Amino acid sequence: MGEEKFPEIEGGGSLILAWQIKNKRVLVVGGGEVAAGRILNVLNADAKVTVVSPREVDFVDRKFEPSDLDNVDMVLTAVDDPEASSQIWKLCKERRIAANIADVPPECDFYFGSVHRDGPLQIMVSTNGKGPRFANIVRRQIASNLPNNIGEGIEKVGKLRQMLRKVAPGPEEGPKRMAWMIKVSDAYSLDDLCEMDEEDMETLLRFYAPNKVPRFKCLQAMKDKSWDLGCLRPLKDEPEAFDGSWGFSVGWG
Amino acid sequence: MGEEKFPEIEGGGSLILAWQIKNKRVLVVGGGEVAAGRILNVLNADAKVTVVSPREVDFVDRKFEPSDLDNVDMVLTAVDDPEASSQIWKLCKERRIAANIADVPPECDFYFGSVHRDGPLQIMVSTNGKGPRFANIVRRQIASNLPNNIGEGIEKVGKLRQMLRKVAPGPEEGPKRMAWMIKVSDAYSLDDLCEMDEEDMETLLRFYAPNKVPRFKCLQAMKDKSWDLGCLRPLKDEPEAFDGSWGFSVGWG
Repeated sequence: MGEEKFPEIEGGGSLILAWQIKNKRVLVVGGGEVAAGRILNVLNADAKVTVVSPREVDFVDRKFEPSDLDNVDMVLTAVDDPEASSQIWKLCKERRIAANIADVPPECDFYFGSVHRDGPLQIMVSTNGKGPRFANIVRRQIASNLPNNIGEGIEKVGKLRQMLRKVAPGPEEGPKRMAWMIKVSDAYSLDDLCEMDEEDMETLLRFYAPNKVPRFKCLQAMKDKSWDLGCLRPLKDEPEAFDGSWGFSVGWG
Repeated sequence: MGEEKFPEIEGGGSLILAWQIKNKRVLVVGGGEVAAGRILNVLNADAKVTVVSPREVDFVDRKFEPSDLDNVDMVLTAVDDPEASSQIWKLCKERRIAANIADVPPECDFYFGSVHRDGPLQIMVSTNGKGPRFANIVRRQIASNLPNNIGEGIEKVGKLRQMLRKVAPGPEEGPKRMAWMIKVSDAYSLDDLCEMDEEDMETLLRFYAPNKVPRFKCLQAMKDKSWDLGCLRPLKDEPEAFDGSWGFSVGWG
């Protein structure tokens, strides 16, 4: 842990986490707009949801009971009853269940932010309580500046990683695989990734063995089969996409 | 919960949360680069950190022991010992302690993402495991597109909310306060907010009582004291910043 390169601590933030609640049991207490938003959030992460709410919603039509917490992994409440909320919070803390009591910051293990979602990509904006409404504005501005098909692009990156693990499955290849993926990410822009099709990925994977990454223009040109080795010559002004040495045999794979 | 406006569920995501670990005890097991990053993350959120690691680091110089988990709220491990890691994970689950075992996705209650930080603003990018490296690229692109002083802008929004709560402290004012802040956020751009100074905010707060929000240009003009009421006339092409009715007395405050 080199002290000179360890960044400065800046307190006052949250620990932003991507919680994994697939098949976990989440209890939502409340049946209003806020509760509906919570339900959407946890369903998007494949949780199993129980909703306890009197009247308005057709779930468990009664008030909260302590036994509702049995076998529950997370609790989100959004009820207009501060006393009941505080009671649920205390019970959750006794049982070590993570909980969020809507509109009561001190009774929250975590806050929600404003999340942009595009397939596997999630972007979350938090103002740490300074202005939730402005988190939405920042999120919308971010979304409008991203490539249209970026979710698909990220999906392709995932595909490429999977294909790479098939081409070079050994655990001993781990560091080389990681280093090569880093080369790819350094050489290609987000727009490049979004444009890539499966044929491009297969061609690209042939460069894994010699540990090279061709420029994206070249990769696409190879699809036409009309490409020649001139395309592979490193350009002086684009050194980062190459390591300068092209002395590998062209007999890939 | 009107069914027609409830967005479609898109599974496969994470539940992105801003975890509150101020003054909570976080145990970090491991002393390498990854552990160093974890320590930075939790210190930025004001946690109390215990590090257990043999040798390399000058903390608790021994291997992990189950009693290390006593009174701990969260555990992050980054050790090169899959068996020891799995043991820690199992103990955490028995004790219902949230944990992340680095590089072992099934032994993680949560993942980390790539986080951009600017004062109170935190933006987290997750690819849900498709390409951690590309999350960094997306994060850098997002950061480069944000106004330079956006963190300060968000800080100002927080200040404005505080000042507003002083001007109109009653709990019965809650809905009006919220509605007015929404008006402000609809009327001003992020760049406007970043430019606002304390005097602008004080002027702006005078528009709370009549429930109005002047155009930003006007707000700034008022600083010179040279502004006239012509500036307050609603423009036909900017109706959203006004509600069209200016029939309030000018004797603010």
